Amino acid sequence: MLNISTEHKKEHLYLEVYHYYKKLIMENRLLPGSKMPSLRKCAQELKLSRTTIENAYLQLAADGYIIARAQSGYYVTDIARKQHPHALEKHPRNIIPCIYDFASSGVDRESFRFDLWQRYIKSALRQDERMLSYGEPQGEKDFREVLSDYIRERRNVICSPDDIVVGAGLQSLLQILCPLLRERKTVSFPTPSFIQGSTVFEDYGFDVHYRDKTCDVIYVSPAHMTKWGEIMPVKRRLELIRHAEANGHLIIEDDFENEFVYLQKPTPSLFGLSGGENVIYIGSFSRLLLPSIRVSFMVLPPSLRELYEKKAARYNQTASKAEQIALCQFIRDGHMLSQTRKLRRLYAQKLKALTAAVKNAFGKNCQIITGAAGTSLALTIPCSSTGEQLKKAARLQGLRLEILNETENDITLVLSCSSIPVNDFLPACQLLKSVADNL
Amino acid sequence: MLNISTEHKKEHLYLEVYHYYKKLIMENRLLPGSKMPSLRKCAQELKLSRTTIENAYLQLAADGYIIARAQSGYYVTDIARKQHPHALEKHPRNIIPCIYDFASSGVDRESFRFDLWQRYIKSALRQDERMLSYGEPQGEKDFREVLSDYIRERRNVICSPDDIVVGAGLQSLLQILCPLLRERKTVSFPTPSFIQGSTVFEDYGFDVHYRDKTCDVIYVSPAHMTKWGEIMPVKRRLELIRHAEANGHLIIEDDFENEFVYLQKPTPSLFGLSGGENVIYIGSFSRLLLPSIRVSFMVLPPSLRELYEKKAARYNQTASKAEQIALCQFIRDGHMLSQTRKLRRLYAQKLKALTAAVKNAFGKNCQIITGAAGTSLALTIPCSSTGEQLKKAARLQGLRLEILNETENDITLVLSCSSIPVNDFLPACQLLKSVADNL
Repeated sequence: MLNISTEHKKEHLYLEVYHYYKKLIMENRLLPGSKMPSLRKCAQELKLSRTTIENAYLQLAADGYIIARAQSGYYVTDIARKQHPHALEKHPRNIIPCIYDFASSGVDRESFRFDLWQRYIKSALRQDERMLSYGEPQGEKDFREVLSDYIRERRNVICSPDDIVVGAGLQSLLQILCPLLRERKTVSFPTPSFIQGSTVFEDYGFDVHYRDKTCDVIYVSPAHMTKWGEIMPVKRRLELIRHAEANGHLIIEDDFENEFVYLQKPTPSLFGLSGGENVIYIGSFSRLLLPSIRVSFMVLPPSLRELYEKKAARYNQTASKAEQIALCQFIRDGHMLSQTRKLRRLYAQKLKALTAAVKNAFGKNCQIITGAAGTSLALTIPCSSTGEQLKKAARLQGLRLEILNETENDITLVLSCSSIPVNDFLPACQLLKSVADNL
Repeated sequence: MLNISTEHKKEHLYLEVYHYYKKLIMENRLLPGSKMPSLRKCAQELKLSRTTIENAYLQLAADGYIIARAQSGYYVTDIARKQHPHALEKHPRNIIPCIYDFASSGVDRESFRFDLWQRYIKSALRQDERMLSYGEPQGEKDFREVLSDYIRERRNVICSPDDIVVGAGLQSLLQILCPLLRERKTVSFPTPSFIQGSTVFEDYGFDVHYRDKTCDVIYVSPAHMTKWGEIMPVKRRLELIRHAEANGHLIIEDDFENEFVYLQKPTPSLFGLSGGENVIYIGSFSRLLLPSIRVSFMVLPPSLRELYEKKAARYNQTASKAEQIALCQFIRDGHMLSQTRKLRRLYAQKLKALTAAVKNAFGKNCQIITGAAGTSLALTIPCSSTGEQLKKAARLQGLRLEILNETENDITLVLSCSSIPVNDFLPACQLLKSVADNL
């Protein structure tokens, strides 16, 4: 029997009715398909107003416990049988496990010192007082100071901490930047493959073009011009800057993978070369540390910084405060530099080993292109099937591939060395060869 | 003497020249104001091409070491004296410390179990394999499953994990949502004070209105209708839903602070009441856990979910993967429920104690309004100065205030109890009284 204490406020009554029936239904004491008492009858029985009962029924219906049938009344649904409608979906159809992932954007599992990073996160979380408040919209002040020192030293980007805006990944930064560029309408990307970048610009109403020097905004990744790590030579950088200056264009320099340039010193940044007047510099640590750490930053030139400052307080910081604090101290203690050195050495060795493994597996029947940076090589092999067919056949054997290009007689793949251990290179390449041969 | 190994590629040469002069300048062996050798002379001396020297000089100039004077040549700047241009700015002007923060959006320092949260973060970071890859664009799958159970149980929001999108805070979610609503042009907010929300809509070209029932999108926070915690009664919720349905409007339900409703059970969500057809539900944990944890989520109705799925892969996840994994297990283990109960009890007690302290300090000479939820009360006191004057005078005494309203004779403040310990309520209120009296 429903027990209603009269002390309760009116608003509570309907909830008590709601819970009473919900319980009956979920315990199968009211079976699926059975009719609920009419509003009038229920109200009489419980000595409550019809409105109260109606509110309870509406809520029960809204939550899927009962359903209204026109001209007839309310009926119990079969919700009790499928309380967790997604419980069955929890185990997706048998998916073939990926053994060798040549298409990975992850990092080498040996490369990251989890124990070290845990120590820094732990120490960040110990700063109780600081964790109790929202983060600074622009990013934590001490972190921006460390960043400004770091990029001056490493990338010749000279800026004040106040020019730096921190965000949870590139897109969060572009979502702050795009509204500041409202008089600009067109943006040029180097290739259509960088969907993440172009989507944000499209979302803000920009016309997206490719390799179009006449656009208002020129987006470039000079340290990652192609998937196999070609870098933009200084001469072309200077040309690009001069052309942009002469035409009043804005350059967005996405310095992706600049740290993986295997020359003695990375090529100077566009921001540094231009003096930072009409270049926005964007940096990130996802390939250097962990992709799952969502901390990126951009350096704004003076004109945009002024516009940003007016709006800064309107945006909440997206990057985790704990991760900012941890990263700040991690860089201060010199770990970013040693991590960079370590990864550069590691990936240079791995790319060399992968090249050797490909040659071993394919003999002279292939063409390999490597760049001066990055973690991938381009491999062209003879194949009369389509790239999609090759990709599917490989996937069935546990091999994940990225197709770059295809002609009637051959297919070009991008093979990333980052996620596969060195000892697996040869078996992986041999598997790829056998898949291609048996197509 | 500059020592150039001939083995190097051409691109390296200019960098060697660059570093040679950089060193001389930074070590004060080339003094500020001194003239650099001409390009021709330098090229002759070093037996290098003029282009190489020019590239080195351009880079030195870009990095601020030298400066070009028209028709004259390059001169050393005073960069060596001010290597860290912001070093002096590190200690901002003497700011009066804030002793009592009545305007805080933070949380009570006693409320959060840092040790517990650290354990969960640590356990998340131990999942090495998972941390090595980018997060799922929509949010971690197991986290969305837990969320869907949680909001069904707590808020009667019935949805599948696939309807949930996770992001680093409300704005990150709106930045995914707004581009999906492109045929809608107008949005209504309850008050102009929620700048964070309206800014995103403005950024995407929406016309922002206030309390306008004719808008295409109606943004509401039913559990936080006013700053002092008024909640929207069920009757008005049902009206709102019916009106929106009849006119094809979309409701965005920001369920901010729904957990701080001090009735026995929170009022049902709009999403639950409507059956989720044209309501987007948005939830967050920042007031429940720590504002510095940036994890929010939204539940999309079927029509929008379809649009979202087409674009999902174009957006990177913004929320920290470690924090998602930690939060997932934290909720599973029941800590979110106990945290909610604890905070609701704590803030109910604190609001009561703050009310008593205000009455004690101001006597009958004030008016207090409290709502059924939240962490603040509204206080009206007689004051012939402006709100801005009161705010400034209070700040000089270490008191931070938020002004809600003012007339010729009185000022209404919002006093938040969240960041001030209970024992400080009385001295804080007495300080406020003395500031107001001495204006």
